[in-house]
Amino acid sequence: MSRIVYVNGSYVPEEEAKVSVFDRAFLMADGIYEVTTVVGGKLIDFAGHMARLGRSLAALKMTPPADTEALLAIHRELVVRNGLDEGLIYLQVSRGSADRDFSFPPEGTPPTLVLFTQKVAVLERESVRSGIKVASVPDLRWGLRDIKTVQLLYPSMAKMEAKSKGADDAWMVESDGTVTEGSSNNAYIITKAGTLVTRALSHAILHGITRLAVLRLARETGLTVEERSFTLDEAKDAREAFITSASAFVTPVVSIDGQRIGDGTPGETTKRMREIYIAESLATAI
Amino acid sequence: MSRIVYVNGSYVPEEEAKVSVFDRAFLMADGIYEVTTVVGGKLIDFAGHMARLGRSLAALKMTPPADTEALLAIHRELVVRNGLDEGLIYLQVSRGSADRDFSFPPEGTPPTLVLFTQKVAVLERESVRSGIKVASVPDLRWGLRDIKTVQLLYPSMAKMEAKSKGADDAWMVESDGTVTEGSSNNAYIITKAGTLVTRALSHAILHGITRLAVLRLARETGLTVEERSFTLDEAKDAREAFITSASAFVTPVVSIDGQRIGDGTPGETTKRMREIYIAESLATAI
Repeated sequence: MSRIVYVNGSYVPEEEAKVSVFDRAFLMADGIYEVTTVVGGKLIDFAGHMARLGRSLAALKMTPPADTEALLAIHRELVVRNGLDEGLIYLQVSRGSADRDFSFPPEGTPPTLVLFTQKVAVLERESVRSGIKVASVPDLRWGLRDIKTVQLLYPSMAKMEAKSKGADDAWMVESDGTVTEGSSNNAYIITKAGTLVTRALSHAILHGITRLAVLRLARETGLTVEERSFTLDEAKDAREAFITSASAFVTPVVSIDGQRIGDGTPGETTKRMREIYIAESLATAI
Repeated sequence: MSRIVYVNGSYVPEEEAKVSVFDRAFLMADGIYEVTTVVGGKLIDFAGHMARLGRSLAALKMTPPADTEALLAIHRELVVRNGLDEGLIYLQVSRGSADRDFSFPPEGTPPTLVLFTQKVAVLERESVRSGIKVASVPDLRWGLRDIKTVQLLYPSMAKMEAKSKGADDAWMVESDGTVTEGSSNNAYIITKAGTLVTRALSHAILHGITRLAVLRLARETGLTVEERSFTLDEAKDAREAFITSASAFVTPVVSIDGQRIGDGTPGETTKRMREIYIAESLATAI
């Protein structure tokens, strides 16, 4: 079955979903995106994703393609047209099409707006049951990683590098030895003392929507939370490790560079955080 | 007049020149490019551009879209179909279209190949007569700048930042104070002692095709050439400064952050290097 994709005001079969070769995202990576998870046909933390979209648009001085209500309507229309019960909705905005130039296009150039669905299991995943293995790679991305741009070539290369080492994903490491995040997820450890540690917000990492919710829920359950950098060595010595993202929710990490974390199985606190996060997400989905 | 654009085997009017929204360059900046200059309907240093394209493809493990002879034929066909006497031919290769995934698409996924022309003056430019003003910005790009990818958002932002300061282009500066390069060109100074200085090749800068030729010609004319890093302060104190790129050839820089270089007019050595470079380029164009 062909998906129905949204492109600049039209709903079209995916084979016909095209953009100009002069689109700024195609020629210059001048685009931003969001991925919202769908469970039971409902959107998880849509408001959070739209708030971040607004921040990305503002950071890049990009024209908003539509208001939040209109974007919500498109998301819902795609759920209906594609019979999407569980999966993802991807949204991308670019600075529009114009003849290639390092200068931004003239004011008034309409932004490009594309949305499509992906049917994937998010509640039940083998990666959650067994946990994932991560491999470390140097973090060679640009300096403004808090803006959710389509400059994903390096994370993609990092994921392939990790897979070539027999791992499932990469954790990226700064030249000072501290972990930033995974290829498309935030990174966490739980120390032997039981403290949840994740890197503080800055230009160095994506400001995860799931991260925000998980840290709030962790504090509400009485966990001690420290937002600070941690090294790869500290991570390897941790009791538990996990990642979060819109699609992974909370997913356990069971080894780093071949070294088992804890007893090499998903940690108890990690499993509990996943349950709590999913329960709240389903209760508040729209 | 509408241009004729090449897209995956077809020559189409630019309004019809489109790629899938699932193209890896659109979604993940997973694409590379080259820009070849045309003068008198002939291609300048085509072999150099194709050699670098080969290096970019290899660095990213991307499938070559066609052999050099076939690419040359497409360049020439675009020159004819667009009546291009003077301007640029842009070529982009991406890893092709596949459902969005951080993992590379399956082996055998055909790469996307797009080429288009831009009619612009390259021999006679106001920027050459008056020289350009540059403004410094921090270099926040990724770590593999020697691969000519479409991750041009930061250079584009840097150019806009420079223009907002009344300059024509940006020179990007590492956290250690050394200049890397311009937004889409290599950066050079000529010291008060008459030495031509430009940053050595590494992952920190693009390995310019024009840079290669200009350094060879400079040495042939008896100039002392040092390939080493220089600071912004050293640049501001230089006798001359200039940039090189496929389209700018050799273009004088007359001020940096508002400070005049030399007497604030294009330098004599810079002008001579431009003449020598253009003479050789026209003599060897194909």
